[in-house]
Amino acid sequence: MTKTPFLSVTRRVRSTPFTRRVTESGVKAYTVYNHMLLPTMFESFEADYHHLKKHVQVWDVAAERQVEIIGPDAAKLIQWVTPRNLAKMQDDQCYYIPMINEKGGMINDPVATKISDNRYWVSLADSDMLYWLKGLAIGKGLNVDIFEPDVSPLAVQGPKSDDLMADIVGNSIRSLGFFRHRNFNIGGKNYLVARSGWSKQGGFEIYVDGTENGEPLWDILFEAGEKYQVRAGCPNGIERIEGGLLSYGTDMTHENTPYEAGLGKYCHRAGMDVCIGGDVLLAEKKAGSKQMIRGLIIDGDRVPLCHNPWQLTNAAGEKVGHVTAAVWSPDYGKNIAIGMVDKKHWDHETVLNVYATDGKRRATVGPLPFAAY
Amino acid sequence: MTKTPFLSVTRRVRSTPFTRRVTESGVKAYTVYNHMLLPTMFESFEADYHHLKKHVQVWDVAAERQVEIIGPDAAKLIQWVTPRNLAKMQDDQCYYIPMINEKGGMINDPVATKISDNRYWVSLADSDMLYWLKGLAIGKGLNVDIFEPDVSPLAVQGPKSDDLMADIVGNSIRSLGFFRHRNFNIGGKNYLVARSGWSKQGGFEIYVDGTENGEPLWDILFEAGEKYQVRAGCPNGIERIEGGLLSYGTDMTHENTPYEAGLGKYCHRAGMDVCIGGDVLLAEKKAGSKQMIRGLIIDGDRVPLCHNPWQLTNAAGEKVGHVTAAVWSPDYGKNIAIGMVDKKHWDHETVLNVYATDGKRRATVGPLPFAAY
Repeated sequence: MTKTPFLSVTRRVRSTPFTRRVTESGVKAYTVYNHMLLPTMFESFEADYHHLKKHVQVWDVAAERQVEIIGPDAAKLIQWVTPRNLAKMQDDQCYYIPMINEKGGMINDPVATKISDNRYWVSLADSDMLYWLKGLAIGKGLNVDIFEPDVSPLAVQGPKSDDLMADIVGNSIRSLGFFRHRNFNIGGKNYLVARSGWSKQGGFEIYVDGTENGEPLWDILFEAGEKYQVRAGCPNGIERIEGGLLSYGTDMTHENTPYEAGLGKYCHRAGMDVCIGGDVLLAEKKAGSKQMIRGLIIDGDRVPLCHNPWQLTNAAGEKVGHVTAAVWSPDYGKNIAIGMVDKKHWDHETVLNVYATDGKRRATVGPLPFAAY
Repeated sequence: MTKTPFLSVTRRVRSTPFTRRVTESGVKAYTVYNHMLLPTMFESFEADYHHLKKHVQVWDVAAERQVEIIGPDAAKLIQWVTPRNLAKMQDDQCYYIPMINEKGGMINDPVATKISDNRYWVSLADSDMLYWLKGLAIGKGLNVDIFEPDVSPLAVQGPKSDDLMADIVGNSIRSLGFFRHRNFNIGGKNYLVARSGWSKQGGFEIYVDGTENGEPLWDILFEAGEKYQVRAGCPNGIERIEGGLLSYGTDMTHENTPYEAGLGKYCHRAGMDVCIGGDVLLAEKKAGSKQMIRGLIIDGDRVPLCHNPWQLTNAAGEKVGHVTAAVWSPDYGKNIAIGMVDKKHWDHETVLNVYATDGKRRATVGPLPFAAY
């Protein structure tokens, strides 16, 4: 792909409660995520990145669509689809939960929000888990109702997020724990707010209940945020690789297990004993994984965009993995990448070849996130 | 949305076996469909349209992803998800099958291809029916294997399609019936070819089994097609509205039943008696539908693009439906549209108001497809 193509938008590519404001803010590029517009660039990837790491941004992440599971069998269903043990989850907690199929392959990596013992929201990465959950529930005859509520996350991200939110809802928000949620009154309406978000710069996600509330809330944040140099932003491809934040569909697919994706800490015996595909994960835990996700430093000038995996080879020219995302990091002054590497070659400091779109380069295996460098 | 945005491409937005050729052919815009690139424009919407109606085009419709259902319970599963009666389906037939949820709402409208009594391919519109089918099968304990095979449809569309294909595989293809399929040898490999495709200009869909076969097949079609002025093309937003071809996610969503989408002829008693949501459809059949899809002629100059539904009102200013897609038809010299209209106002020749992005216009209800005008 040599030229950046245009995106054709029809109703099928859904707008969000914030799309008009995003457009007014000068969005330049989108991706499509859960059949919905997800902004990817405003000024430029690098300008957006520098601003995010210094100030505060408001992100339209409505494309993280919610699935609501409500009813007596809600807890049973949600434990059936993830190897993470949910037994101790509190009703003010959010859990990152790898979701897997019957072969242990990842089919999503959402954040689940527990609202009460029989009510959850699942904030999706890009695959239609609504159908998976509903299919399982109907097939098994579970007593739950499952639907996509009119709830759209709006993220506040960046080092000044606490200051901005405290100005709006009061200082009590500063004590909100990581991946904890609470209700806050904003503009006369209660919103569930969680300390979460797809950056390592700190911040919150506001679960905007009701499309009609999107623009008023956006406007409140921008009015209060003026003194913090607030801007419209979006998940940033440089910052997320620096931080080792994985993108489902890019860094791991249904062909990878959570162990391979470096998510072994979310695979618990109590979960694997009851979840679909748990037997496959238990066998992998015993036998060891064949490949695993790693950070990589790629030599040379600024790498081109990585649209499709770049092959990794060893000195003998054998295929030993692939790079799934790569970018020039201005702050590190290096090309950083995420890739899947075979066991024999996954040790840190291992030197490999990578076949980038513009040719062969040297790549060095390392840890994720890159802050460790 | 005032300006056409760019599309950011990462691995999550999958390339197809034909993407390199599509790029070389000068694609200008894409949409994302089943997490995959689907071209939407080459020269311009109108130039592509005129060429399609006169010559022959090759379309990368790999984004119509396949779900393979294989095993002793395959027929049982597929009948469970559609109100269409599949009892008489032959193993050389393709059926258009509305798929519905437990509320009778449409969740896809794929073409199902029967390969044998226990093996089907389902060629999807834009939603992850893989998970719906797998969830149901796992929940119910059905004896089937369900997966996305490495099969990518490549369409040959336009009035010269028969001539082009006959030059390649012989004249026997001319007798292939509508929505029938047969295997043909192309370049030394057998491909399943169906007389089908998302245009009303005639043509075929070649189910390309194996990514590695994509480019060789593309090249064979373009070499043989030179004398027919073959071009790279794609589903065309003007031609499809003229022909009344519905787009799932645009013209109907999970909030609409097949009856509302004008697909009552695919709702059979034998199907509704056994399929999920069939009871809801039987009740609607008895009580009558409250709204239904219609064609509309919109007065005035060329309409803008319709990104989000445009409200329809009656003379009293009451909301009576919405337009889901609208375009200027060069051949009809009119603005043509598809919309959902309430019962009281769905009769042909009813005059309504439509609130297009650029203001209020007059709209006249009529039949679909527009050829009837």
